[in-house]
Amino acid sequence: MPNDYEQMWKDLGLDLENHAALMDVLGKVYADIFLSQKDRPAKTAYLDFVMSEVHGLRIRELVDGKKLGKKVVGSYCTFVPEELVLAAGATMVGLCAGADFATDAVERILPRNLCALIKSTFGFKLGGVCPYLEASDLIVGENTCDGKKKAWEVFKGLVPNLYVMDLPQMKHAQGRELLRLEYLRFKDALETLTGNRITAASLSSAIHTVNAKRHAVHRLSALRGMDPAPISGLDSLLVNQIFFYEDPIRFTAQIHELCDELEARVAGKRGVVPSKTPRLLMSGCLMAVPNWKLPAIVETSGAIIVAEESCVGERGTRNLVAAEGASVEALVDRLVDRYLQIDCAIYTPNTDRLQHIREMVDRYRVDGVVMYTLQFCTPYAMESIGLERELEAKGIPVLRVETDYSQEDAGQLKTRVQAFIERVQD
Amino acid sequence: MPNDYEQMWKDLGLDLENHAALMDVLGKVYADIFLSQKDRPAKTAYLDFVMSEVHGLRIRELVDGKKLGKKVVGSYCTFVPEELVLAAGATMVGLCAGADFATDAVERILPRNLCALIKSTFGFKLGGVCPYLEASDLIVGENTCDGKKKAWEVFKGLVPNLYVMDLPQMKHAQGRELLRLEYLRFKDALETLTGNRITAASLSSAIHTVNAKRHAVHRLSALRGMDPAPISGLDSLLVNQIFFYEDPIRFTAQIHELCDELEARVAGKRGVVPSKTPRLLMSGCLMAVPNWKLPAIVETSGAIIVAEESCVGERGTRNLVAAEGASVEALVDRLVDRYLQIDCAIYTPNTDRLQHIREMVDRYRVDGVVMYTLQFCTPYAMESIGLERELEAKGIPVLRVETDYSQEDAGQLKTRVQAFIERVQD
Repeated sequence: MPNDYEQMWKDLGLDLENHAALMDVLGKVYADIFLSQKDRPAKTAYLDFVMSEVHGLRIRELVDGKKLGKKVVGSYCTFVPEELVLAAGATMVGLCAGADFATDAVERILPRNLCALIKSTFGFKLGGVCPYLEASDLIVGENTCDGKKKAWEVFKGLVPNLYVMDLPQMKHAQGRELLRLEYLRFKDALETLTGNRITAASLSSAIHTVNAKRHAVHRLSALRGMDPAPISGLDSLLVNQIFFYEDPIRFTAQIHELCDELEARVAGKRGVVPSKTPRLLMSGCLMAVPNWKLPAIVETSGAIIVAEESCVGERGTRNLVAAEGASVEALVDRLVDRYLQIDCAIYTPNTDRLQHIREMVDRYRVDGVVMYTLQFCTPYAMESIGLERELEAKGIPVLRVETDYSQEDAGQLKTRVQAFIERVQD
Repeated sequence: MPNDYEQMWKDLGLDLENHAALMDVLGKVYADIFLSQKDRPAKTAYLDFVMSEVHGLRIRELVDGKKLGKKVVGSYCTFVPEELVLAAGATMVGLCAGADFATDAVERILPRNLCALIKSTFGFKLGGVCPYLEASDLIVGENTCDGKKKAWEVFKGLVPNLYVMDLPQMKHAQGRELLRLEYLRFKDALETLTGNRITAASLSSAIHTVNAKRHAVHRLSALRGMDPAPISGLDSLLVNQIFFYEDPIRFTAQIHELCDELEARVAGKRGVVPSKTPRLLMSGCLMAVPNWKLPAIVETSGAIIVAEESCVGERGTRNLVAAEGASVEALVDRLVDRYLQIDCAIYTPNTDRLQHIREMVDRYRVDGVVMYTLQFCTPYAMESIGLERELEAKGIPVLRVETDYSQEDAGQLKTRVQAFIERVQD
């Protein structure tokens, strides 16, 4: 990234030395994993550009917007409705949580046996290396799992502008009502933050914008699922990751252009891997940038990932919001309809998830499922055991992987993944 | 225990071989830890008797009651209101979760890195060694932590009569309303189970019974807190543990008799340890029978535990229910008032807990706090770090201990505890 961003980073309060070290590693890892892929679609140049400017041009846009009064809302979870943020005239961005940083400092205030994602959230703050976090006028935490719920109590001592959204644990009438009231409270908080009133018109327009973004990734999902796959799982995952950072309208347009190219590839039967390459579904915890370890191992071991059953993937983007309703309250009800369907493992029971996985296995003609759990993520770890049993009973091979953000287990994972790919080929 | 219980255990479906092995270990551990104590109050003979008959006479009572139509409700959590169970004419018992059992079988269906308490719950079922569980007509699980919430999804495949109670994560108006509706739903379930209607009179009477039980342990708390302490922390913990198993009216009467003896001891300045023995508060996760490892280490290292800030202890028994209200609904509101005050770490924020610990430190003239966390219990692990910092800043020494039900770390714990006791003596 050009050096003329340094003043901006400094103004945001980043630790320039730490940040330079992070960018250096990120650039190398990106080159190793993404740029080394063969026969990528030309339009992946968009992804390369976005990633090369992830702490540069995109941050400049946010900072420039802020100068004009456009607020930035940072989020860590797919339950936080971007529609409300856009309707209030603000920008929503996903915050950094995909790499270990400042681990020693983190483990002085959090337990060691906490998931890497939460520790990363704290590490990026303590290390002073997340410009999205520092640019945020409101940071939204949520009561999903125990780890996050309790982490916000500590995080509020590190940032001046934390807002915590409560979430239900069950989808009964009371759960739905809690989500509705929490979304209305969030609407009020956004109106206070921005000074803009959310209207039925602005919310309706925001719903269309976010639906369009989801629709674009739905189109990508269908295309990547063709045989031979016209785009790698890694590049497709990157699209799902960028989904949380990029300007939504530009993102939608660019992904449609990518899909146009993929359609031409499909028509010409041009794949990034040969037809009949083992097709895997990645299912479980979300993968935030730059958490590419496991997909990179899979795709350098002779398989292709044809879909993600994940919050950064189809769990996060599956349903659209019905943009019907004459009032803000009616439209918020439509948001609740949509978000309450998310089959996150924090819910009990969460039986929809098995059904969704089976649908995805059928739709994308999947040969096997990699059940991915971040170590110490109790909700997904608990579900993975039962899901493995249910899927295997239906003849769907499952590899259960529990890992973190370190590279220490990369060799062992490679061996297990290779053995699994051999199994699904039989 | 006499062999004439064998047919009863067999009829309940216990695995007699496993059960005999468990009883054998339990008897030896109890003798080692409790019977070896010096100068115990004579009335601790009641505790010895209850424990010697924990799977015998008490189960016979439950089974005999069942023959007369008296239902048994098993619970794992202090949020389950015994008042409603008694008001329906049923008996409530705490279920076994304090020792490792059938660990290999458990770890085939649960993650290894799950807390020992939940694994124990499953181990006692899979091993066929918990007569309370097998005697229960209704088993009540609750959505407290992630581990339990997701565990019930699996446990329901192992038992025919699981009922899951939802709980809020915050104490806002919605949280209170959820608890109220869940208690009313539980009331309905109990009425269906027993065929008895809960009335204002029966609920009011049940509230008096449970309040009286709590009042008895409040009296014990005040007496054990004297210097020199007239009873050990181990025996006092045992009282708090038996609280969950014993007939409430007999328990109340017996504990008052114990307290009468302790009053005489206090008047005569007769302690189980010398005056000025280092006085420790145990704070954190609950300790279920026979989880006595850490208290036994503490009390054989030259200190005395003068109070438990725990669900099996003052967190569980702190507040009484106001028995005011002309209707069942009004009395249920009083239950909600009381139970919503429990300062369990599942709540966010949970600032009352620090205040309660500080009050207990003052009231019992505590020299130091042992902050006890079951390994992988995220809510208590998260809170313990901040509590340690806050308490140490006030000059209150804290020892943070994370352990499980195994004996593997006993030597290391002993060393740490001894060093801590030396520190608080300085």
